[in-house]
Amino acid sequence: MREFRKDPILGTWVIIATERWERPSDWAHEQRGAQGGFCPLCEGNEDKTPPEVFALRNGTPPNSRGWKLRVVPNKFPALQIEGDLEKQGQGIYDRMNGIGAHEVIVETSLHQETLATLSVEAVRNVLWAYRERIVDLKRDRRFRYMMVFKNHGSAAGASLEHSHSQIVALPIVPKRVKEEAERTRDYFRQKDRCVFCDMIRQEMKERDRVVCDNQTFVSLAPFASRFPYETWLLPKGHFSSFEQMQMDEYESAARVLAETLRRMDRDLNRPPYNYILHTTPFQGNEEEHYHWHLEIMPKLTKMAGFEWGTGFYINPVRPEEAAERMREEESSGATPPAFPS
Amino acid sequence: MREFRKDPILGTWVIIATERWERPSDWAHEQRGAQGGFCPLCEGNEDKTPPEVFALRNGTPPNSRGWKLRVVPNKFPALQIEGDLEKQGQGIYDRMNGIGAHEVIVETSLHQETLATLSVEAVRNVLWAYRERIVDLKRDRRFRYMMVFKNHGSAAGASLEHSHSQIVALPIVPKRVKEEAERTRDYFRQKDRCVFCDMIRQEMKERDRVVCDNQTFVSLAPFASRFPYETWLLPKGHFSSFEQMQMDEYESAARVLAETLRRMDRDLNRPPYNYILHTTPFQGNEEEHYHWHLEIMPKLTKMAGFEWGTGFYINPVRPEEAAERMREEESSGATPPAFPS
Repeated sequence: MREFRKDPILGTWVIIATERWERPSDWAHEQRGAQGGFCPLCEGNEDKTPPEVFALRNGTPPNSRGWKLRVVPNKFPALQIEGDLEKQGQGIYDRMNGIGAHEVIVETSLHQETLATLSVEAVRNVLWAYRERIVDLKRDRRFRYMMVFKNHGSAAGASLEHSHSQIVALPIVPKRVKEEAERTRDYFRQKDRCVFCDMIRQEMKERDRVVCDNQTFVSLAPFASRFPYETWLLPKGHFSSFEQMQMDEYESAARVLAETLRRMDRDLNRPPYNYILHTTPFQGNEEEHYHWHLEIMPKLTKMAGFEWGTGFYINPVRPEEAAERMREEESSGATPPAFPS
Repeated sequence: MREFRKDPILGTWVIIATERWERPSDWAHEQRGAQGGFCPLCEGNEDKTPPEVFALRNGTPPNSRGWKLRVVPNKFPALQIEGDLEKQGQGIYDRMNGIGAHEVIVETSLHQETLATLSVEAVRNVLWAYRERIVDLKRDRRFRYMMVFKNHGSAAGASLEHSHSQIVALPIVPKRVKEEAERTRDYFRQKDRCVFCDMIRQEMKERDRVVCDNQTFVSLAPFASRFPYETWLLPKGHFSSFEQMQMDEYESAARVLAETLRRMDRDLNRPPYNYILHTTPFQGNEEEHYHWHLEIMPKLTKMAGFEWGTGFYINPVRPEEAAERMREEESSGATPPAFPS
């Protein structure tokens, strides 16, 4: 059973997906990864995933060896791709069948690599794969938002160790995304400026929250960081949708992202983390008020009841201090030691 | 350093409280609790906490042995009680000094007890202590909202094993609470009915999400449960503020709460959990549109990037199934085995 249900108080949607409950035990016996066990995402195990929907290959046939990156449907999807949207009421409640896409981006064929150890070119390929999948999924008129995210490490919710990200195509725009869009539009109406552009201008002047940057991208610890070492990657120029950039811009973004993750790995000893791509929920053209960005959240503290109930966070580390420590880290660009087994 | 910072995009507040970073190591050496080590919340160790602000005692002097329940200021508060509110801007950013109260409700003098093993009278005392502290803290004109919550078990963020809850008095109303209030007001304007009352009416008729109830209170798995076994406790009649009930109503609430937690303990083998009291953010009289309730969230799954970035949850257990399992559990009311060491 997979369905969307709407909270009658707050209007937020929840996915009820009972098939995923069995997932941990299904995988447990076959997933040992670095310990020498079996990993379904490693090269040579292409038949252990659903057939690929995208891949970067050197002329090798689909679903065989010889690839740099693969995108496959999630074996335990939170949503199902087949069917029409059916909405229905039940007294004061609203529900909708669980239509959507749920794909896995396998970022490398090698089990030991991570985004912090891969080459800039390989990280660019990951961003490019996000773009390719977003563009393709947007053609499906049932979908309203593409959520791209990464869970890295077990404590951050990853059920597989092998470096991967996920993309979920949703038939609704999540409330948080809608709010971000509405509030940035209000700001634009008032000031005729994008709030992200204003933020970047101030950050580039003050520089105490900047982690690293190049000509076109910057990573910084946001002023109101919710989590210790929370870091955002943003284009310095105004871009509302992630998928509308040019190839050299993805490469530039990859350079700053890789550098940021390497500094994070060194300063925090390869922490588990999540990141989420925030891109415009609007179909069509560039928006003046929205500015795509990637929010990276190392998982260093436990979420407590306080945070859950309020969306109101207590952060024990000043963003200025986190940024300073990450700036000071030597980042030679060399490969850090392999992922611990 | 303790301060509030406002996210310029979403308008949510974050607390930056650097003193709390040292907390885990400060406590590590002295906290071993059930293993026979030292617990600062146990009877006999009253001098290891700041002086009590409330207690239920049998005539014994404050801060000595002989108590059933104590409320003390948090030794590592996220906010500080002294000072006036000072708000200031910094370019596009807003900050405010970290004024607020942060107290700990020690629910029992005995280390092994939990809300699921305590008598109904003792659980009623806990709810009564919440009431007493809310009423007292409301007199301080600097505070706008009292957040009462409980982290039970290390995985739920508790840094001490001894059964306790917390109360945080805030100079602002958290955005999530404000939204809840606004949306329930909209519903009332449209229908002249409280959305919670409507929900309870439907739940009492359908009964498939009801866990247990008595004449005046009910606990149920909400239709759009975000987490497996999420359970809400609500008064069946309309009450907007927690602190305006009568003593027998707290006792009735305690009866359903204790029963719910006992069933949860049995069905899920004493899970870690959080709960959060949702009460009206409005000062003064009863509100027609708001309805206080307690949201209980067992911590069975890890939050992943998807959930964090969107406020959009994937729940692998149908609320109807969770409620059914909890209904079926034998609850003799007898004390389950002691908390595992």
